[in-house]
Amino acid sequence: MKFHTEYLHFETKKHRAYVHITPQVEKILERSGVRDGMILVSAMHITAGIYVNDDEEGLIHDIDEWLEKLAPFKETYQHHRTGEDNGDSHLKALLIHHEVILPVTNGKLDFGTWQRVFYAEFDGQRKKRVIVKVMGE
Amino acid sequence: MKFHTEYLHFETKKHRAYVHITPQVEKILERSGVRDGMILVSAMHITAGIYVNDDEEGLIHDIDEWLEKLAPFKETYQHHRTGEDNGDSHLKALLIHHEVILPVTNGKLDFGTWQRVFYAEFDGQRKKRVIVKVMGE
Amino acid sequence: MKFHTEYLHFETKKHRAYVHITPQVEKILERSGVRDGMILVSAMHITAGIYVNDDEEGLIHDIDEWLEKLAPFKETYQHHRTGEDNGDSHLKALLIHHEVILPVTNGKLDFGTWQRVFYAEFDGQRKKRVIVKVMGE
Repeated sequence: MKFHTEYLHFETKKHRAYVHITPQVEKILERSGVRDGMILVSAMHITAGIYVNDDEEGLIHDIDEWLEKLAPFKETYQHHRTGEDNGDSHLKALLIHHEVILPVTNGKLDFGTWQRVFYAEFDGQRKKRVIVKVMGE
Repeated sequence: MKFHTEYLHFETKKHRAYVHITPQVEKILERSGVRDGMILVSAMHITAGIYVNDDEEGLIHDIDEWLEKLAPFKETYQHHRTGEDNGDSHLKALLIHHEVILPVTNGKLDFGTWQRVFYAEFDGQRKKRVIVKVMGE
Repeated sequence: MKFHTEYLHFETKKHRAYVHITPQVEKILERSGVRDGMILVSAMHITAGIYVNDDEEGLIHDIDEWLEKLAPFKETYQHHRTGEDNGDSHLKALLIHHEVILPVTNGKLDFGTWQRVFYAEFDGQRKKRVIVKVMGE
């Protein structure tokens, strides 16, 4: 059984951003040498998430607008009494979820045709990390 | 360590549908011979999800109504500029999430009394697939 | 490959509650002896969830208020025809999700600075269980 761990680093220019990371995850999978197993891709922050969906610009716009509607910026979050102003970033991260498990078969990501993995930043313009842990044989 | 992979196939009659798949997942677990470990159940599409909850007809109706309220069909999604009309299906899939990890102990799904696993179809009437990967010993 | 399984037990005083369980999960990890791998933490009920976010009182209040807004208590859920009155508890559990996978590296939870794992109870005042399964070497 192999366990191969790498970390991805981000510092987005925008406060919110959706970064397509399938190519980086595939390179880590190659370096791991794993042929069958899975990959844990997990944000190491409480204001960021990981999700799998389509790499289509219009859809990414829709996702962002939808998240702002369901988990809007508001001044009145109690979390802001700590001096923070990112209560909505936490809620958006909870909605999207902070991690995914991706299947690996025959040395490849066992994805459907349109599946791609994304890093979702909800409180950017600072250094962030994602752990990618490949587990298998 | 064993890795046993099978695929489930769906073509629902309705546009949206919730299909109870615990029996199929249990049969795959039996065929794998795994006694301790876990099962990744993951939709291979970007308009479908997998979730664990109760197999109760009224609740399934409530879940469907709730998803339509939080991620409604609208003509105005930017994703529709590609010619698609399923923007809401993507958002519903993000809300439900596309995969689950199920624990296996003593050769059985280590579920609570009422836990059941479901395939949630948000853009049906076409061929879809789910990967079921059992990993353990 | 080691598989080490323990169960956490809860009986919250309130109907809804958010219980910080990182210390318990860390003790289970220690007892497992696993140095590299992952931990599945999964609620065994359909009205409870597991999530990773900040252990900050104001934020926990915001999360609770937000869940009640997006998945409110209502008398009119069809699920209530069974005699239950917890339709909203199921929807809240779906929104938060019932399980997480936590990475383990060098014998420790490989968490970011502020990440903590929580048990989210949406229908408490009764006995509940969470499975914690450590898998690795």
